[in-house]
Amino acid sequence: MSEPFAAVDVITAKRDRTRLTDEQIAWVVDAYTRGAVADEQMSALLMAILLNGMDAAEISAWTTAMIASGERLDFSGLDRPTADKHSTGGVGDKITLPLTPLVAACGVAVPQLSGRGLGHTGGTLDKLEAIPGWRASLSNDEMHRQLAEVGGVICAAGSGLAPADRKLYALRDVTGTVESVPLIASSIMSKKIAEGTGALVLDVKVGTGAFMKTEAEARVLAETMVRLGGDAGVRTVALLTDMSTPLGLTAGNGLEVREALEVLAGGGPPDVVRLTLELAREMLEAAGVDADPEAVLASGRAMDSWRALIAAQGGDPDAPLPTARETQQVLAPADGVLVRLDAMAVGQAAWRLGAGRARKEDDVQAAAGVELHATVGAPVRAGEALMTLHTDTPERFSTAVAALEGGFDIAPEGSRPDRGPLVIDRIA
Amino acid sequence: MSEPFAAVDVITAKRDRTRLTDEQIAWVVDAYTRGAVADEQMSALLMAILLNGMDAAEISAWTTAMIASGERLDFSGLDRPTADKHSTGGVGDKITLPLTPLVAACGVAVPQLSGRGLGHTGGTLDKLEAIPGWRASLSNDEMHRQLAEVGGVICAAGSGLAPADRKLYALRDVTGTVESVPLIASSIMSKKIAEGTGALVLDVKVGTGAFMKTEAEARVLAETMVRLGGDAGVRTVALLTDMSTPLGLTAGNGLEVREALEVLAGGGPPDVVRLTLELAREMLEAAGVDADPEAVLASGRAMDSWRALIAAQGGDPDAPLPTARETQQVLAPADGVLVRLDAMAVGQAAWRLGAGRARKEDDVQAAAGVELHATVGAPVRAGEALMTLHTDTPERFSTAVAALEGGFDIAPEGSRPDRGPLVIDRIA
Repeated sequence: MSEPFAAVDVITAKRDRTRLTDEQIAWVVDAYTRGAVADEQMSALLMAILLNGMDAAEISAWTTAMIASGERLDFSGLDRPTADKHSTGGVGDKITLPLTPLVAACGVAVPQLSGRGLGHTGGTLDKLEAIPGWRASLSNDEMHRQLAEVGGVICAAGSGLAPADRKLYALRDVTGTVESVPLIASSIMSKKIAEGTGALVLDVKVGTGAFMKTEAEARVLAETMVRLGGDAGVRTVALLTDMSTPLGLTAGNGLEVREALEVLAGGGPPDVVRLTLELAREMLEAAGVDADPEAVLASGRAMDSWRALIAAQGGDPDAPLPTARETQQVLAPADGVLVRLDAMAVGQAAWRLGAGRARKEDDVQAAAGVELHATVGAPVRAGEALMTLHTDTPERFSTAVAALEGGFDIAPEGSRPDRGPLVIDRIA
Repeated sequence: MSEPFAAVDVITAKRDRTRLTDEQIAWVVDAYTRGAVADEQMSALLMAILLNGMDAAEISAWTTAMIASGERLDFSGLDRPTADKHSTGGVGDKITLPLTPLVAACGVAVPQLSGRGLGHTGGTLDKLEAIPGWRASLSNDEMHRQLAEVGGVICAAGSGLAPADRKLYALRDVTGTVESVPLIASSIMSKKIAEGTGALVLDVKVGTGAFMKTEAEARVLAETMVRLGGDAGVRTVALLTDMSTPLGLTAGNGLEVREALEVLAGGGPPDVVRLTLELAREMLEAAGVDADPEAVLASGRAMDSWRALIAAQGGDPDAPLPTARETQQVLAPADGVLVRLDAMAVGQAAWRLGAGRARKEDDVQAAAGVELHATVGAPVRAGEALMTLHTDTPERFSTAVAALEGGFDIAPEGSRPDRGPLVIDRIA
């Protein structure tokens, strides 16, 4: 088959800051997916995109091309509206776990396609796999059936969904071309639009533990994604939320499932509860369903939904969660107030303890991670435990402790922590 | 073997405008050459270098790393000094053909490593292969022996010389990363330094038919290369020369050999004679040899050197040059003065007639090309031949004529052409 464009012409156009046409973008994404554009050509183009940018029309065409590379799911036959949530990733961000059954219990179908963690942020699928028997892979039919019967599903994206994104993501990972707003936005939104959700709430994290370190960067990403969703007919809203310190009191797969269960049982750390309810309200509003998630959570119906969801995917909701073979405490070095607890430091520590993976092919430990005994603003006493480290491989304690060095500050009693609001802004 | 760096860290450093260290550069070039850095990683790095640049120290380290990837020739045992010339490539640039035997006849050994053409500029080896029997490939021993016996050699660079450059050039060709001064300068100079010449004269072309379209770009490239040569102990000087219109009256392999023979016989177009002599003087001066190239050319000794060089490489200096199966004339459409004759248009026409190749694996026609009957500034008469097109494949005439469309201007009698000097500047 003769190709309508030459890859090198598309590369040099972007290199020389010429706008790419819709036709060029549709072709290059398709040709790369079927192997007619080589990895070394696409990576040069991706670097040119990272450094020279894409305008709104180019990002839209790129997203459309990624969706067109695969199948589109269709849940319009369900008796309920659909809504999904996507977080750009943070430390201790287990919100999907209580949120999905809560929103399902409110009468909205939640087709939550999730991923695995890489680096210091955990992946939702890794967390749920701490539950004995639970499986992440469902066929499209199984997913459809579970949505109709249980109302919620959390599973891995099938290989038929945006295969261009899968191939591009693997390439970006090894070529230093991950950190590009146009490429991040199109990657996230192509999967969410292809997944067929009617409404989408984006949790865009800002801070040391997040991908976007500044509010300005996060805002650009959020606005780009909200526009892409709207253009594709998906009602989309974004919250900018704080990721300067971990969310909740745990970072690590099984530890985070335990905390999610506490929330579903009516307890749990206040920040996790609050963000779960805020995001639930946004999802319900975007789906056009009038329900009170706080009341539903208090009623126990969200926990019922959780048990049904876990059981439907082969998990045993009553099985005990795995515990780590070894623990070690990190003690407060002084009396005072914990005024800073850095999300990245805690994320790195959890990762090094075995909660995350350095490479895609690595395994994770279900029980490894960090359990916090104090959060920002709390008074602490010298010699008391600030946190407990969990791992099956105790030789990792020293590197985890090294990651925490400089990661927290204790100031004299009466000091006030330098911490902003949990929800920074709403973009719709 | 464990690697001291991760490719992605080197890529992101350059992407984020951090200076690369000598150690990073030495490693990434070496690791790419031995396959430990993947093509898609190197192409992303090359695009980052193209867009973010390299400073003088980085370019020097990159060049050193490319030289270190292979062998270095050593001609210090010869009884004469050595000098070489490199042209950045133009249309009708056959200067190497008369220049090499001329300088050799003046008592300087000329180890001229040349290349093949790609696109609209011809390659010296393609031109010489129009001579029956002549071969471009010599072993290092053969090259050394011929330099001692004949004083001059024109041959292909052996595969042992800067293999990193060979691999990088092939990658740059398909990834839109050719047009970078740091990468062009290091590619040229790594081969010239590894080749072991004691002196080097660079002919940096400027204009429509050249790689560098503006004098400013050409000047930066020339200065970069002169500095790299000097740092490596090679006495290096550069001339910036005009390539807005073809050099001489021919563009095409056998046609250019014929013109070179005219120069060696004491005739030939004035611009070719003049540039040959200017470059010869620079090479002799850089080599520290006091000789008068004009007198040597007039004496016929340069022609003797030519015959010896051709014969030493298997060629028959007396064999008739191939002639094209078909010719077609391009006529002047009006009376007046030829005020513009675009080098790129003529180069494209010659290429389309079969003189050049679109892909590295293509063959070239020995007899195809363009023969000019008028140069810029000449009076022309409507209906008289401006040029003759030569090819073995007459179906190509129409695309060659199309390439010439808009490629020349005829102005009313008395008009003066808009043409600058042949030698624009000298950089040492």
